[in-house]
Amino acid sequence: MSNTKIVVDAMGGDYAPEWIIRGAVEAINEGAKAHIILTGKEDIIKSELAKYTYDSSAITIVDAQEEITCHDAPVSAVRTKKNSSLVVGMNMVKNGEADAIISAGSSGAILAGGQLVVGRSKGVKRSPLAPLLPTNKGYSLLIDCGANVDARPEHLLQFAKMGSIYMENIEKVKNPRVAIVNIGDEEEKGNALVKETYPLLKACKDINFIGSIEAREIPNGAADVIVCEAFVGNVILKLYEGLAKMLLGEIKKTIMSSFKSKIGGLLIKSSLSGLKERFNAKNKGGAPLLGLKGLVVKIHGNSHNEEVKSAIFQCITFKENDVNRKIADELGKEMVSSNE
Amino acid sequence: MSNTKIVVDAMGGDYAPEWIIRGAVEAINEGAKAHIILTGKEDIIKSELAKYTYDSSAITIVDAQEEITCHDAPVSAVRTKKNSSLVVGMNMVKNGEADAIISAGSSGAILAGGQLVVGRSKGVKRSPLAPLLPTNKGYSLLIDCGANVDARPEHLLQFAKMGSIYMENIEKVKNPRVAIVNIGDEEEKGNALVKETYPLLKACKDINFIGSIEAREIPNGAADVIVCEAFVGNVILKLYEGLAKMLLGEIKKTIMSSFKSKIGGLLIKSSLSGLKERFNAKNKGGAPLLGLKGLVVKIHGNSHNEEVKSAIFQCITFKENDVNRKIADELGKEMVSSNE
Repeated sequence: MSNTKIVVDAMGGDYAPEWIIRGAVEAINEGAKAHIILTGKEDIIKSELAKYTYDSSAITIVDAQEEITCHDAPVSAVRTKKNSSLVVGMNMVKNGEADAIISAGSSGAILAGGQLVVGRSKGVKRSPLAPLLPTNKGYSLLIDCGANVDARPEHLLQFAKMGSIYMENIEKVKNPRVAIVNIGDEEEKGNALVKETYPLLKACKDINFIGSIEAREIPNGAADVIVCEAFVGNVILKLYEGLAKMLLGEIKKTIMSSFKSKIGGLLIKSSLSGLKERFNAKNKGGAPLLGLKGLVVKIHGNSHNEEVKSAIFQCITFKENDVNRKIADELGKEMVSSNE
Repeated sequence: MSNTKIVVDAMGGDYAPEWIIRGAVEAINEGAKAHIILTGKEDIIKSELAKYTYDSSAITIVDAQEEITCHDAPVSAVRTKKNSSLVVGMNMVKNGEADAIISAGSSGAILAGGQLVVGRSKGVKRSPLAPLLPTNKGYSLLIDCGANVDARPEHLLQFAKMGSIYMENIEKVKNPRVAIVNIGDEEEKGNALVKETYPLLKACKDINFIGSIEAREIPNGAADVIVCEAFVGNVILKLYEGLAKMLLGEIKKTIMSSFKSKIGGLLIKSSLSGLKERFNAKNKGGAPLLGLKGLVVKIHGNSHNEEVKSAIFQCITFKENDVNRKIADELGKEMVSSNE
């Protein structure tokens, strides 16, 4: 199997370019079957790369002098900054010069660029962003957390199919359980969107639909693929991050509040750091933007080398398991049957 | 000031009637300026009350032989079980024989009964359910978590006003900060509902609107009144409960996993229980269903005496601060100005 060609946006993210480039080099040095294309300011990238020893045939640089920042309006930035590290890289994916792109840059620009530059696969109505959420059983895919607010039932059905293919091929979950986020577990509950989507999911033979999931059951890993429209998905993702951070912060503050509990804190420290590691999704790569002509992976803006490295391995697994073709086949089938 | 007349649904909830009745008696014994009306099976209530010493003139029983359970379809249960402890109590509120009702029974039936039996105040378009969420700064009111899915912008505007009045009068927050749940903090972000609601909130002179709030900021107490439609509110509330429970459970399991960390756990136990107490909303009463002709308070299905007791004090504060009249005045003003 030929190496997966992966663009890494060297200029995007809080710790770019230093930690981003370091992650790319580490992936190569750890045996990633990939060819990495670093997009960004050539001189800066070169001087960063000079710090490391690695197989230089595995990494090339494509110069891109512009940068998209979080202050740029996403859609117009993608349209006007044609020579930015992100847009140059996305064009390479579009043109088949690369299989995937990884970026820690502006979320809005990544989402906009995925749709406008890379473009959707035939049959895909909307491209969902699908991060993994840590649960007490492992990880669940939350689909969609992207920019597709006000989705329609047929979009959610496609999200369910794409999410199932992703979990089966990348996370190796057999027959992944698909559920729709709802405010009760009865079929007749929910808002208009959920009520219309539910029967579509129930009737779909290509997924293992288990019904509604209440938000309280998400942390318990009650489903593998959690379907919702982007507004709700974004609320779930952000609250997950914010609440976990706040609670752990308060616990830490409490432990530091007395001498006795400080000693206690020292004794539980190693056990807790194991737990923290388990809930840290940085070893799980980034959030894929699915259903595009290539793979776009959004990693956290505060990503370091570890996140970049695991996203590179994620892209390789994605390519080696031919996930994009499987998605195109599945959603193409839908087009055929709707033409019948 | 005359005593507040409060119905307590003696038959609703996992720990009814024993712990519910105990909470009512304790409130009276702790000096609550209330007259309590216990609705439910008279003989059972009588034998429970016989366990306690209390001012018997402060508690009366109104017999209601039926019960609404969680298995009943809410709307039809409210319509057909006219002699249930919940419906009998709600009719007393409707008829002015009581100021408020507290129930730990079926959420669906409480919401349905509030709208169908007690009825909305003049000018109120929808009645929101508004629980308090614990944050690292105190408490924020999440409005709406009820059954009003697919709300319209004018409903959310009313929720913002009612929530402000509640926080000002009950939680004594001066000039409460109102924010709308959104997926970014710029004005142009959001789904169709948020985009239409935002300018209404911004233009409203009666509230202190501070803009959008991302879900990640909710645990940090970034706003006092958090406005959203019920589907999103329900997701936030349930995820808040579920994630906090899961994380604390995992931490406990981790601490118990080794001898060393078990000892550490013992040393931090008292500090952590203070934290747990701070995040426990049971001393904050229940979730009010606002904008009705009387006050309906939904307490958790697993409520014990403490929750009942604090809900009784909540109802007294509500009455003594004339919150219902303030809401009616505020929303009535809106009717006048829309007629101009």
